[in-house]
Amino acid sequence: MGGVNGVDPEVLLARAYLNRVAEPDCVPLWGFVEEVGPVQAARDIRAGVMPDEVRGPTDARRSTVDPEADLLAAERHGIRLVVPESPDWPAFAMQALQRVGHERLVEWRERRRSSDESGEPIPPLALWVQGPAFGPDLGVRAVGVVGARASTAYGNRVAGDLAFGLAHARVAVVSGGAFGIDAAAHRGALGAGGVTVLVSAGGLDRPYPPGNEQLFRLARETGAVVSESPPGSAPQRRRFLTRNRLIASLTAGTVVVEAALRSGAINTATHCRRLGRPVMAVPGPVGSAASAGCHALLRRPDDPAVLVTSVEQVLELVGSMGEGGDPAGEKRTSVLDGLDLVDQRVFDAVPAHRAATIDELVVVSGLGLGDVLGALPSLQRLGIVVAEPDGYRARPVRAVLR
Amino acid sequence: MGGVNGVDPEVLLARAYLNRVAEPDCVPLWGFVEEVGPVQAARDIRAGVMPDEVRGPTDARRSTVDPEADLLAAERHGIRLVVPESPDWPAFAMQALQRVGHERLVEWRERRRSSDESGEPIPPLALWVQGPAFGPDLGVRAVGVVGARASTAYGNRVAGDLAFGLAHARVAVVSGGAFGIDAAAHRGALGAGGVTVLVSAGGLDRPYPPGNEQLFRLARETGAVVSESPPGSAPQRRRFLTRNRLIASLTAGTVVVEAALRSGAINTATHCRRLGRPVMAVPGPVGSAASAGCHALLRRPDDPAVLVTSVEQVLELVGSMGEGGDPAGEKRTSVLDGLDLVDQRVFDAVPAHRAATIDELVVVSGLGLGDVLGALPSLQRLGIVVAEPDGYRARPVRAVLR
Repeated sequence: MGGVNGVDPEVLLARAYLNRVAEPDCVPLWGFVEEVGPVQAARDIRAGVMPDEVRGPTDARRSTVDPEADLLAAERHGIRLVVPESPDWPAFAMQALQRVGHERLVEWRERRRSSDESGEPIPPLALWVQGPAFGPDLGVRAVGVVGARASTAYGNRVAGDLAFGLAHARVAVVSGGAFGIDAAAHRGALGAGGVTVLVSAGGLDRPYPPGNEQLFRLARETGAVVSESPPGSAPQRRRFLTRNRLIASLTAGTVVVEAALRSGAINTATHCRRLGRPVMAVPGPVGSAASAGCHALLRRPDDPAVLVTSVEQVLELVGSMGEGGDPAGEKRTSVLDGLDLVDQRVFDAVPAHRAATIDELVVVSGLGLGDVLGALPSLQRLGIVVAEPDGYRARPVRAVLR
Repeated sequence: MGGVNGVDPEVLLARAYLNRVAEPDCVPLWGFVEEVGPVQAARDIRAGVMPDEVRGPTDARRSTVDPEADLLAAERHGIRLVVPESPDWPAFAMQALQRVGHERLVEWRERRRSSDESGEPIPPLALWVQGPAFGPDLGVRAVGVVGARASTAYGNRVAGDLAFGLAHARVAVVSGGAFGIDAAAHRGALGAGGVTVLVSAGGLDRPYPPGNEQLFRLARETGAVVSESPPGSAPQRRRFLTRNRLIASLTAGTVVVEAALRSGAINTATHCRRLGRPVMAVPGPVGSAASAGCHALLRRPDDPAVLVTSVEQVLELVGSMGEGGDPAGEKRTSVLDGLDLVDQRVFDAVPAHRAATIDELVVVSGLGLGDVLGALPSLQRLGIVVAEPDGYRARPVRAVLR
């Protein structure tokens, strides 16, 4: 395979351009790239012949973006650009974001929803990466451990213990780069000699907060450091929210250890739920504000978080994730692989975050009423679709490696 | 109305006899009394002409039981016997036990289940009572606050705060008579000048443990003290388990504050679930053994406990229970009152602790398939029955006073 890291250099340059020309989670831009491919999308935008919906978010920067400069700056810092066309793109982990992204695109085009303030659930156009642990299986055997910056000693201890135990069980730990629970999680995983994945909101040449520079260094030496932002980008509030969807998608499930009622960790949990990834929460003393967000997640009337108190309970929920085997020789299978094509299409039509009526499923799946009615019982037997008073709803499917 | 406290003395004597002649939760004895009434049941047993299934559990004591002596001893201690025929029998609270008891009787007769080691879910034959708060509405506007004897300072504080807040909201607190969470709950309710109901496993003339004698006294002065055991009975292990079903039935829902993994509080929660009463649990630090039972209840895959962190959340779950009104002038209504007779019978056939198939519902309700299929959609719309992959299941109905 030619090109840089197995990717056509033209594709890499186009993705670098697209990654910089608009903010990370721009729905119409992502939709345009999905439609015409990255090379033509970049060419059209640069030439000013893009669809109207793409013009707004790209017009300001389209003539000034210099992808060669970004790639050169990245190389100087040992940062590489990984794109969906790369052999080491985490394709399996990104599947859910891909599926939900297409639903979101349809909603957006039909003007059924305006821009989502908590971050759009669409795949990244490209990822800037450091570290040896980044590869196609990233996120499959991985658990997010996230939480408050303003954590307590209790929370730090639990996060560290959980991450240590997960790393010991050869499960990668995924978290942000903040003080508090994030840092305690990375330290726990590093302490067990395991893999930790730090997903940053800003450019990887600018560790943020600077006080965690050492943690960024340790993570990139043995694990991975990942960002959607090109080198030189400062972290911005919006980018923390869009970053959280990457944490959610790069895991088989996420544990919230401590979180205030409105917080980044709760936002990550929202992304998990959209993606059908299990959300777990650690309980704490009822008077502790740092546990209030966890308790709220556990109290959600629909799709509450699962209470976890130990590494074993986390591993039980996210599935065996291939434990005991050799990751390189393993083959991904899941309960979905056993479905025929019609069942698969019906399942794809069932939303995870709310119930859908039979009529909706017919419309969304594009199948006939008979096909939908025929598929639902077996999906229910498999436990991946549940009947609720107001319709049908998908349950998280555990990715199982065998 | 003639007799003692509005009850025919012959009925009272018969119930006192039956209450003493076998252990508290004897399924065949209860079934016999349901069938022929207490007076004839007592007469037949004394004469030795009872059904075979009743002979075994009653033969040892049937000639020696002296109900007059029990009633006299009770009177000396200011204890009165309240029976289902009494105007102050808590009939509404006992409804669920009555319904589940009949199901249990059928199972028992069909030899589908042997004696239940965790206590039979059948109504008491009679209750020995002290205190002004015992009456027909007992248990309607009431919440159980239960937990470990070996509680922590955290648990005691939370139990006391919850009970204080409930009492302040004019909700009775119901608990056992043990050290730890039980005692903290009663103290909290008493501290707010509220009603506390102490359900004892032994005779009321023998407060157990003796160290809580003062608590028994305070509860009977302003609230109520209740036992199924006649005066003079020592508390026995089995009686603690059967006592727990009374706590469960005399509440609109129960909060487990701290509990070890296998404990009386978990047994009370099991009874609540059987009766369709909401089970709530207070979370705690994940390392605390005293919170392990609560966390296990919150992690149950089917019908998990609801996590609560405040009085408001408890009140929200158990319903308005008539707040703001005058209890005496209030009329009990519930969502069930709006159902027609067929819907009501179908609902009664739907179990709460597992899902039942349509076929089962037809058999249990004694209705036709068309009636069952016709009733289910409206029961689902009301949210009191849910469709699950393997059938239909009842959800707790909140008793609402208006």
